[in-house]
Amino acid sequence: MRRAKLAVAGLGRMGRVHAANVARSCPSAELAWVFDTNAPLAEEVAGDLGAKAARDYEELLADPSLDGVVVASPTPAHASMAVLAAQAGKHVFCEKPISLERPETLSVIEAAEAAGTGLQVGFHRRFDPSMLAAAERVRAGELGEVVLFRATQRDKAPPRPEFLAGSGGMFVDMAIHDFDAARWLVGEVESVSAQGALMSGVDDYHTVVAVLRFGARALGVVDVSRVAGYGYDSFVELMGEKATVRVESPFSAQYEWRSPGAASRPLVESFDRRYAAAFAAEIEHFARSVLAGGGFEPTGQDALAAFDIAVAAAESARRGEPVAIGASAGSQDSKPR
Amino acid sequence: MRRAKLAVAGLGRMGRVHAANVARSCPSAELAWVFDTNAPLAEEVAGDLGAKAARDYEELLADPSLDGVVVASPTPAHASMAVLAAQAGKHVFCEKPISLERPETLSVIEAAEAAGTGLQVGFHRRFDPSMLAAAERVRAGELGEVVLFRATQRDKAPPRPEFLAGSGGMFVDMAIHDFDAARWLVGEVESVSAQGALMSGVDDYHTVVAVLRFGARALGVVDVSRVAGYGYDSFVELMGEKATVRVESPFSAQYEWRSPGAASRPLVESFDRRYAAAFAAEIEHFARSVLAGGGFEPTGQDALAAFDIAVAAAESARRGEPVAIGASAGSQDSKPR
Amino acid sequence: MRRAKLAVAGLGRMGRVHAANVARSCPSAELAWVFDTNAPLAEEVAGDLGAKAARDYEELLADPSLDGVVVASPTPAHASMAVLAAQAGKHVFCEKPISLERPETLSVIEAAEAAGTGLQVGFHRRFDPSMLAAAERVRAGELGEVVLFRATQRDKAPPRPEFLAGSGGMFVDMAIHDFDAARWLVGEVESVSAQGALMSGVDDYHTVVAVLRFGARALGVVDVSRVAGYGYDSFVELMGEKATVRVESPFSAQYEWRSPGAASRPLVESFDRRYAAAFAAEIEHFARSVLAGGGFEPTGQDALAAFDIAVAAAESARRGEPVAIGASAGSQDSKPR
Amino acid sequence: MRRAKLAVAGLGRMGRVHAANVARSCPSAELAWVFDTNAPLAEEVAGDLGAKAARDYEELLADPSLDGVVVASPTPAHASMAVLAAQAGKHVFCEKPISLERPETLSVIEAAEAAGTGLQVGFHRRFDPSMLAAAERVRAGELGEVVLFRATQRDKAPPRPEFLAGSGGMFVDMAIHDFDAARWLVGEVESVSAQGALMSGVDDYHTVVAVLRFGARALGVVDVSRVAGYGYDSFVELMGEKATVRVESPFSAQYEWRSPGAASRPLVESFDRRYAAAFAAEIEHFARSVLAGGGFEPTGQDALAAFDIAVAAAESARRGEPVAIGASAGSQDSKPR
Repeated sequence: MRRAKLAVAGLGRMGRVHAANVARSCPSAELAWVFDTNAPLAEEVAGDLGAKAARDYEELLADPSLDGVVVASPTPAHASMAVLAAQAGKHVFCEKPISLERPETLSVIEAAEAAGTGLQVGFHRRFDPSMLAAAERVRAGELGEVVLFRATQRDKAPPRPEFLAGSGGMFVDMAIHDFDAARWLVGEVESVSAQGALMSGVDDYHTVVAVLRFGARALGVVDVSRVAGYGYDSFVELMGEKATVRVESPFSAQYEWRSPGAASRPLVESFDRRYAAAFAAEIEHFARSVLAGGGFEPTGQDALAAFDIAVAAAESARRGEPVAIGASAGSQDSKPR
Repeated sequence: MRRAKLAVAGLGRMGRVHAANVARSCPSAELAWVFDTNAPLAEEVAGDLGAKAARDYEELLADPSLDGVVVASPTPAHASMAVLAAQAGKHVFCEKPISLERPETLSVIEAAEAAGTGLQVGFHRRFDPSMLAAAERVRAGELGEVVLFRATQRDKAPPRPEFLAGSGGMFVDMAIHDFDAARWLVGEVESVSAQGALMSGVDDYHTVVAVLRFGARALGVVDVSRVAGYGYDSFVELMGEKATVRVESPFSAQYEWRSPGAASRPLVESFDRRYAAAFAAEIEHFARSVLAGGGFEPTGQDALAAFDIAVAAAESARRGEPVAIGASAGSQDSKPR
Repeated sequence: MRRAKLAVAGLGRMGRVHAANVARSCPSAELAWVFDTNAPLAEEVAGDLGAKAARDYEELLADPSLDGVVVASPTPAHASMAVLAAQAGKHVFCEKPISLERPETLSVIEAAEAAGTGLQVGFHRRFDPSMLAAAERVRAGELGEVVLFRATQRDKAPPRPEFLAGSGGMFVDMAIHDFDAARWLVGEVESVSAQGALMSGVDDYHTVVAVLRFGARALGVVDVSRVAGYGYDSFVELMGEKATVRVESPFSAQYEWRSPGAASRPLVESFDRRYAAAFAAEIEHFARSVLAGGGFEPTGQDALAAFDIAVAAAESARRGEPVAIGASAGSQDSKPR
Repeated sequence: MRRAKLAVAGLGRMGRVHAANVARSCPSAELAWVFDTNAPLAEEVAGDLGAKAARDYEELLADPSLDGVVVASPTPAHASMAVLAAQAGKHVFCEKPISLERPETLSVIEAAEAAGTGLQVGFHRRFDPSMLAAAERVRAGELGEVVLFRATQRDKAPPRPEFLAGSGGMFVDMAIHDFDAARWLVGEVESVSAQGALMSGVDDYHTVVAVLRFGARALGVVDVSRVAGYGYDSFVELMGEKATVRVESPFSAQYEWRSPGAASRPLVESFDRRYAAAFAAEIEHFARSVLAGGGFEPTGQDALAAFDIAVAAAESARRGEPVAIGASAGSQDSKPR
């Protein structure tokens, strides 16, 4: 049984999740290299997971036995690292968003096309077992015609200001997952109308709502917040004319606790716990696509399409009117003002 | 639209529930009289509910326009009051247990038969809307052959010692509801095998378990506790070869509250909140039976059968072996030792 | 115990619900009169509920012992009947919407003020026990600052075209309940931005989404559909910085049914089953306000405010941009185009 | 990072689960060998998982680099294979029951003690994440004194008659997991009183109930069935004087599907899906104990204790009276008659 030899570049929170999954949870992958600008961190992770720590990014790209690279660096470094990997003939798994700039996003897509390498983007929800099970029934026609998409996503507190500054704003950083889910489950979005409530003292929203139009018959609505003190949450509903399906955040353990006055269940506290299986499954899919030489999905075009919706949403929130997708493609300013 | 003219005799907790239901919630009933040995209490309830307070029990029985009597006095007074009502030609709704003595229970059944009056016993669960909806599907054959009956009943704290002393013990006071549900939903019980854990310092159990045999194919298991600090609870499962159905205690309100770490729902705290609709429905059924001149159910025989199981369970717990129903019919001692 | 003598005028679906509640479920009310232009229907309901059937509306208004009138006629007749009742010195409970025209709505408010009679509007959700229990905790500050209001409302099929034509459109007919809930739970709405998906062949939407702004800090989002084939649904979430609370549609019975492959619970199929307790409670509140001579709520001003939001939402959906509340007060056209 | 080199002997349903976990899901383990009397099956599994297929059991035991053996053969072969492994100096993970005979069970324990090797038994529930999370709160005292243990376990259909014949009966084959959970969560069982309903045409029960006594204060009740047509189920409740906790079977995916009349959730259909995480975790625990040279748990003594309860339960069901644990230790006949 051959396994795909992978490297993980960037060992922040998501990078470490990916590295552990490549090394331990993905039967089709093995972890050959890790890289981070923080060399001691890379050494430590490499030691824990039985991989080599690259001194620089070029070192790992130069390994001819390496099949693919998981790019999990901070967002500003995504595109250049992905392009280098493609040019070195490596398949690329790139965390979302590929870039905060549309032309740069395009450059990654073009580099992979030119090199004939695969490009998969980190929209992990497409690999969540519950989402997949629900999607399968939707595709089998059990919902009838879909008329409403509804998604909720929440974090318990805003990230640090430094992260926020480079995040691209709430639409590009968070809501983009819901926009990709909307495209995946319903189809292309024609226009978006969004509003946001501003954080005090920071140039970003704490809560946003975006209304999507998929055509004459279907609407979508997405609400995202970073001040949901109770914890992480993620919810997607797809309502059709025959039925509706609601994919919910699981509890962190499968028990009910009854004490005087209340029956309670333990909540999942963070996205990496909620989507643990999805993170492993997306990397396994990448590894299998590497071994099969194709089937990489979601694609760079999926990344671009979700990015365009996010940018249009940000523009809509700023301008106070609906924005057609495509119309805002030239704008790269996705911050509130 | 004629309404049945009813009296409520005994205005303890259950008596007041019944009086309010007769006066306000049962379209087929009206409250003519109330009676309690505590005269000021009777006056107060009568004033609140627009009824007359009888000076003594005989006064209300002497009212020729009175159709029926709801007997909700303390257990030792049930039988004599029920017999007097029947002899006065009134239909009788009697709280459970009719008596702690089998012969006395029989005397009530015989008095009603002799007088040609109806006799309905307060096994309210048979009127719970959820229980009824489930029972309807069971009767329609959706479960297939029933192989297991499972019931749980809990109170948050033992009653006062004075009440305990006259309660007949946990099997006769509490588990009797589960035994009636077992007969109603599955069929006759052939034998019972029970065990109990004793309260410290009191001659009764805090927790009991009873295993029922319905014949060759089906078993039942009932657990009842009086030290469930978290609150009141009541659960019935009926498992068949094709499906299973679980009737649960509802929450006290239909909302989920999420705060850091937990999603919680508010618990119902007492049996009268849990079974509020059932208490109203059993009295409405009694009133309709009065108006129709028949259809009283559950009957005195149902009361006797559930009582026999309860007494046999108590004997089984004492003797440490299964007891066949019928075999223990002569024994009236249902206390633990 | 004095009861308020009430009449119910208009015996359609809601009128019959109100009449039964006045006659049977509301301890502070009694049903003196019913009226409907369909005289045989009025006779039948009167017979069932022990009330008199008025030959015409004036007959019941002429009864000096009558305390109040529940106006449940078709919407176009609401205002004139409410005004006549107020002028006859009767307290008025009026179904929503009071009118499809703002001036006419105002005329009812003014008539009640001039006559010194009470005016309560049929926003029943304010009396739903689950909504009230949740609201109490919100008011006690357990949520912290509210940042998001989210509501969903669904019917399984559109009403008949004749009803639709006079309904005022989806915002005024359905979403108005969510707008009132938003005002009640969060506060005044400053602007609304709405979109709708059109039904084929009918001049109304099948599904709408409205985004609300309550000020700088809080947003709201409401989605309403008339093509939710699976059944009636109603959901309200209030998210604060410390916690979130979700009031859900209850199941129609409290049991879980497990058959091969699925655990299922029975759904409530219509708004009158979902809100049965709320419909009784709002009439009981009206009766108590009648007896107390005050405390009528929600008021005519509440009706006007929710109506203004609904009209603004309809205008926003038509124009494709947010509409400030107040700005659209002159427009009475709330149909999609 | 050193990994424990393990072999899996016996590649039936559980053996294949263990082999896949050793190879893919357990970071502290690697799969060196597999063995099955069905040589082509062993070759196939070895190929899939990157391990060697042993021609005979001795071949793998002879590998000096092998650390431990997972014994997952049919029950009759457990003991001899475990003894051989211990004698070869290998740590042993043995599926339950170790044997259907007490002396043989003891011989395995003694062989491991004599060889100084570890012995862990396959009571996987002790490693279920939900069970562990609940147990942690119980151990922290959040329940108060435990007064009731309640467990339910169900299969959708009886196994093939050949399997049944060698299974040891329902108490030893299935209920043993509940008995181990009872010991683990509450403490030693003093006596058991059991009853069973017989399958037609087969010398085993289709459904059994066992009542446990843990001492003066606590009772337990376990119901197990093999004719639960709706699917696999597993439930454990631990009720204390302050609270109760219920560990339930998770749904197979985290979504709710609403269609006309019902809201449904997908059920897990088999024990290996229900306890997938537990199966991986118990092997990871074994591997870590191998690496640490100690900490193997649950132990052979745990296996013996649960086996003794199961045998006593079978005897109680046969004799119709409670059986004290220890008293029945001499009996190895655990079939119904």
